Amino acid sequence: MGKAHSNGWRQAPRFFSLAADIRMATICGRDRAMTRRAAQKFGWATTTTDWRTTMTDPAIDVVDICTPNDSHAEIAIAAARSGKAILCEKPLARDRREAHLMVNAVQRARVVNMVCHNYRRVPAVALAKQMIDAGEIGDRIYHFRGRYAQDWIADKKFPLVWRLQSPIAGSGVIGDLGAHVIDLARHLVGEVDDICATSETFVKRRPREKNRRGYGKVDVDDAVTVIGKFRRGAMLSLEATRFARGRKNQLTFEIDGSGGSLLFDLEQMNRLQFLSASDPIGRQGFRDILVTEPSHPYVGNWWPPGHVIGYEHSFVHTIADFVNAVIARKRVRPDFADGLETQRVLEAIVRSARGRRWIAL
Amino acid sequence: MGKAHSNGWRQAPRFFSLAADIRMATICGRDRAMTRRAAQKFGWATTTTDWRTTMTDPAIDVVDICTPNDSHAEIAIAAARSGKAILCEKPLARDRREAHLMVNAVQRARVVNMVCHNYRRVPAVALAKQMIDAGEIGDRIYHFRGRYAQDWIADKKFPLVWRLQSPIAGSGVIGDLGAHVIDLARHLVGEVDDICATSETFVKRRPREKNRRGYGKVDVDDAVTVIGKFRRGAMLSLEATRFARGRKNQLTFEIDGSGGSLLFDLEQMNRLQFLSASDPIGRQGFRDILVTEPSHPYVGNWWPPGHVIGYEHSFVHTIADFVNAVIARKRVRPDFADGLETQRVLEAIVRSARGRRWIAL
Amino acid sequence: MGKAHSNGWRQAPRFFSLAADIRMATICGRDRAMTRRAAQKFGWATTTTDWRTTMTDPAIDVVDICTPNDSHAEIAIAAARSGKAILCEKPLARDRREAHLMVNAVQRARVVNMVCHNYRRVPAVALAKQMIDAGEIGDRIYHFRGRYAQDWIADKKFPLVWRLQSPIAGSGVIGDLGAHVIDLARHLVGEVDDICATSETFVKRRPREKNRRGYGKVDVDDAVTVIGKFRRGAMLSLEATRFARGRKNQLTFEIDGSGGSLLFDLEQMNRLQFLSASDPIGRQGFRDILVTEPSHPYVGNWWPPGHVIGYEHSFVHTIADFVNAVIARKRVRPDFADGLETQRVLEAIVRSARGRRWIAL
Amino acid sequence: MGKAHSNGWRQAPRFFSLAADIRMATICGRDRAMTRRAAQKFGWATTTTDWRTTMTDPAIDVVDICTPNDSHAEIAIAAARSGKAILCEKPLARDRREAHLMVNAVQRARVVNMVCHNYRRVPAVALAKQMIDAGEIGDRIYHFRGRYAQDWIADKKFPLVWRLQSPIAGSGVIGDLGAHVIDLARHLVGEVDDICATSETFVKRRPREKNRRGYGKVDVDDAVTVIGKFRRGAMLSLEATRFARGRKNQLTFEIDGSGGSLLFDLEQMNRLQFLSASDPIGRQGFRDILVTEPSHPYVGNWWPPGHVIGYEHSFVHTIADFVNAVIARKRVRPDFADGLETQRVLEAIVRSARGRRWIAL
Repeated sequence: MGKAHSNGWRQAPRFFSLAADIRMATICGRDRAMTRRAAQKFGWATTTTDWRTTMTDPAIDVVDICTPNDSHAEIAIAAARSGKAILCEKPLARDRREAHLMVNAVQRARVVNMVCHNYRRVPAVALAKQMIDAGEIGDRIYHFRGRYAQDWIADKKFPLVWRLQSPIAGSGVIGDLGAHVIDLARHLVGEVDDICATSETFVKRRPREKNRRGYGKVDVDDAVTVIGKFRRGAMLSLEATRFARGRKNQLTFEIDGSGGSLLFDLEQMNRLQFLSASDPIGRQGFRDILVTEPSHPYVGNWWPPGHVIGYEHSFVHTIADFVNAVIARKRVRPDFADGLETQRVLEAIVRSARGRRWIAL
Repeated sequence: MGKAHSNGWRQAPRFFSLAADIRMATICGRDRAMTRRAAQKFGWATTTTDWRTTMTDPAIDVVDICTPNDSHAEIAIAAARSGKAILCEKPLARDRREAHLMVNAVQRARVVNMVCHNYRRVPAVALAKQMIDAGEIGDRIYHFRGRYAQDWIADKKFPLVWRLQSPIAGSGVIGDLGAHVIDLARHLVGEVDDICATSETFVKRRPREKNRRGYGKVDVDDAVTVIGKFRRGAMLSLEATRFARGRKNQLTFEIDGSGGSLLFDLEQMNRLQFLSASDPIGRQGFRDILVTEPSHPYVGNWWPPGHVIGYEHSFVHTIADFVNAVIARKRVRPDFADGLETQRVLEAIVRSARGRRWIAL
Repeated sequence: MGKAHSNGWRQAPRFFSLAADIRMATICGRDRAMTRRAAQKFGWATTTTDWRTTMTDPAIDVVDICTPNDSHAEIAIAAARSGKAILCEKPLARDRREAHLMVNAVQRARVVNMVCHNYRRVPAVALAKQMIDAGEIGDRIYHFRGRYAQDWIADKKFPLVWRLQSPIAGSGVIGDLGAHVIDLARHLVGEVDDICATSETFVKRRPREKNRRGYGKVDVDDAVTVIGKFRRGAMLSLEATRFARGRKNQLTFEIDGSGGSLLFDLEQMNRLQFLSASDPIGRQGFRDILVTEPSHPYVGNWWPPGHVIGYEHSFVHTIADFVNAVIARKRVRPDFADGLETQRVLEAIVRSARGRRWIAL
Repeated sequence: MGKAHSNGWRQAPRFFSLAADIRMATICGRDRAMTRRAAQKFGWATTTTDWRTTMTDPAIDVVDICTPNDSHAEIAIAAARSGKAILCEKPLARDRREAHLMVNAVQRARVVNMVCHNYRRVPAVALAKQMIDAGEIGDRIYHFRGRYAQDWIADKKFPLVWRLQSPIAGSGVIGDLGAHVIDLARHLVGEVDDICATSETFVKRRPREKNRRGYGKVDVDDAVTVIGKFRRGAMLSLEATRFARGRKNQLTFEIDGSGGSLLFDLEQMNRLQFLSASDPIGRQGFRDILVTEPSHPYVGNWWPPGHVIGYEHSFVHTIADFVNAVIARKRVRPDFADGLETQRVLEAIVRSARGRRWIAL
């Protein structure tokens, strides 16, 4: 994540009009030597192994939190108190309580705050949002169907890495992959009303890593499926899994509205499929829109039509919007309040899966 | 349905080796003139408006039931008692009780019986079944994700046709579209263990048909989503809807196994996508198999490789297999017992959606 | 071909309104026993091993010629003289001279005549024709790019079957596959003005078939590529090959017009891709039209929207149109004059490839 | 181009192990103010409006030529004489004579030299090269079919920009788009033996730009089609056009070999389609390889599997390889000799189109 964020900070001023110059001041890390190498590789001016020193540095206006989830709250609250604008990696916090404290802190301090749900700013996703808001798929949405599928642990011999151990990772796919789907669902369709979920750990014991013998217990979820409803009546269907062979990073959604449908797949992130029910019936078909036109969001800042962009560009867009919001002292979404709301949904999913029952939000 | 079944009976002997000659004896209908026209158009020798007369006709060996759901049980039980082999359109019955009576009748009479879930015999689906049985996607299945989506009532001005009125139609998408997905799920993955479902009627009032004024109430479901588990541990995710703009007849499934994945879409029914985890990692990718090789099931009876077939061919395959089973006096799947089991799942879905709770099967 | 044509004659009256009843009178063949089996299998009333007897049979109104190319002219001319309407398999004749004689014969006899270029009547192709004629891709066409690719002899160990020997086959891919592309090019874009071609025989010696030892010479072309121009200014690009691994029956074309583009692929024959330059620039994308709507040509006679059809349906459509033209005594395209024109282009391709020079038509 | 190259120089050391540090010394331009803004935006230390000053600057080791085609030769020859390593934008020169002089200059000076055909280093293209070299599509190639299609001047009202005027642009699509296809053809299949081409200017007069009235003449080609053969026997088919509605930057190729086929499309640049004839016949199908695995060329330096990259990354890869070759004093392809050979093919295409005849190379 440090690599992707650093790239975002370096590249944003090269391609976007920012309201301020960027100075990449300090990178913090636990290991001094590694942090120095990272600083050099990624373009940071100085390093520290104590993040607290940056809080009192008056030359620092912005804090970008890419640490493991268990330190988000502490750092963010300190940064808010120091009056720094904050960009925080998702998920915002380990739980709803922490997220609440963070929201309170930034609201009290009146600092600009943002959660780095970078996929909102993939041009095709931003275009989908514009089209939905403009009514291009109708005045009503019937279905949101989201899926985030990977396959990196589908092999049962894959070792028991830390991400599969709950004390370290917190949760499995729900927090890791599910959070992205929930953020997009809320962004594109609106607030969730109620959900019912089930989760599964397909491979319950895995070989320990490295030189350690034997097998250890996997205690996070491998996959989750969710059904539910949005406040405005649309149906929600969600799946997140690390056990779908051939799916490397398939974050996909289909949204069916009264006037059309939209389809997106992160593995083909420069495209958006659009069915318009306004086309004559005999000429309807999903349009395969290559989202590289100057009129499309963000993408005109890069290359001519037909020249595609990649994964890391979504961070550049996020950082460009964040910087401009910081200078303008304006709200930018998704902010910590969004992060808290997403956290509420994620926790409801966990409780629903455990209790085998519907949970209202 | 009469059109598709009649075509199946006419075409089966032209393309398949059948253990008996087919004589298309009698077509039954309620309206004498219409039935006669149908007989001539579809190729039946005689007509009747009283199906009971066919039961006592010793020249008739087989009864093919394509009537509305409310007469399946009565006709099938009479046919069984008369010792006729029976092919019955899906869903087998209006409810589990009726289905039970039908199963009892055919078992007591020892007549060959089959439910016409024709999609099992689309070559790509039959190939998927062969591959799963041969372990080509591994020894374990993690996910079955099925969807049947159409859009013919997505327009809220679409009138209140009989299929949207529960007294006539029985149910909405669950029985109509959901039944196909459940049959394929059971066929390809195995028996369902438990499910939780929710359903929705998006457009609750629609203009009455023809010359009638005003609006009437829609009292069947427009869409249903289901999560659940199979007995052998795979996760189930199912959706059926008539509100997905641009989806005309999209019956699609993805099956993720420990050793690979399969994808099918009825709108591209001559293709099967196959990801083999046995391919070297750098050469993996979903293979777009055109299921038209002589080695593929059924399709070698038609045309050379690369020459595709259509929807009605699945009925021809069903009838060919049925006829040969009748002559061999052997079980052919899906039989009435399968129909009953599918009915049990469908009713569990309805109860789950009503009660907002998990139902064990 | 007999199988596909017989199916066409059987099925046409079941699905289309024909101006006359069809009676499948006589099938001709060289081997008496095989012809009888074919008659029974395919549904013909009587058989003969002497086609001349059918010419004098007053009960026969129509002759359908599916024999090898070397007998087309003789049979067709005799049929014309007998006043029979004629449907003739493509290519019309072995050479232009023969084709000329055939055209003269049918024109003199004023009999309805048609060449069975069945792909014109694939619904997606017929839709493309309608759209082009209606100006939906603009008032001017810039590019026609056609390709017919198969792979059945890509393996150099594949034996020297008769289709690879010029005395029997006449030509290789040019006549076999190229003829289809040229017919579609003329149908959709117009007459060809000039061409330049090259051809290749990649595998020049192949193992003899069956019990014969050793290798024999392949003396037909394996592949051909052509560039050229249409009279109305569009550029032509054509390729036909039997050496494209993975292409089973890929007859594909792309047509680029001033107002849009169309794409078709026979391996996905129920679809037509359509790019409309009239869509707002940010909403443009190839529309993936599923050509199964009642408003689409031919397909409404079959099944509901979303239910696809297959290869042999194109013969049913051809025969339905032919029968109605016979009764109405009207011209139906492509007729023998079209066959002659296509033959002229094919011969120009052969001469161009041999002489390594441009040929004007 | 300056934007893409500058980005390449900035990003290469961040993601690749380079044998030397990069210092972005001087950017040259004609307009002082604009050049300064570019320097600041793109990250160059100093600016100049006289490129000759950089030739004598001993701190400069490398010259990257992104100027219009008419100054490539002069700058490159001066740079070679000054002992600078040279990266030159394609096409190498305006004609073969100039290209020859440039090759002579770099060979005499023994400086590392490279033409920026960046698409060779798209990971999917580099993977295709590896697979071909490893025999994964067989020991023999039958077909190379390349196409570069855009649509930015398909509207006849599009104005007469400088790229459509031969005195300024040199040529139209042949040099602009065709050069990329020829470079890939040579890279992947080998040297071209002979070709025959035709070209067209569809819209011959266009409105003058800006405030100028009336129409002016378009004197470059809008489209070109080529057939030909490679020395090792494969057939070549090439098309370049700016008149294919819906094609924004479609550089696509299909290569058919004796043991398989490969497909690439720049608009989906993170994917490579691969058909292996080694798969069992019933399991064959084009594999849709997402080229984002660590084992795939270049892409492991960026992000985890499934996270795609974009257009500009191909420049980063080119520059990374170039820098390491400069330090190692080793040949890197495509070099100026390649550029000359490509130029020879391009000129043969022009001559062939003019003379309407085959040209041997």
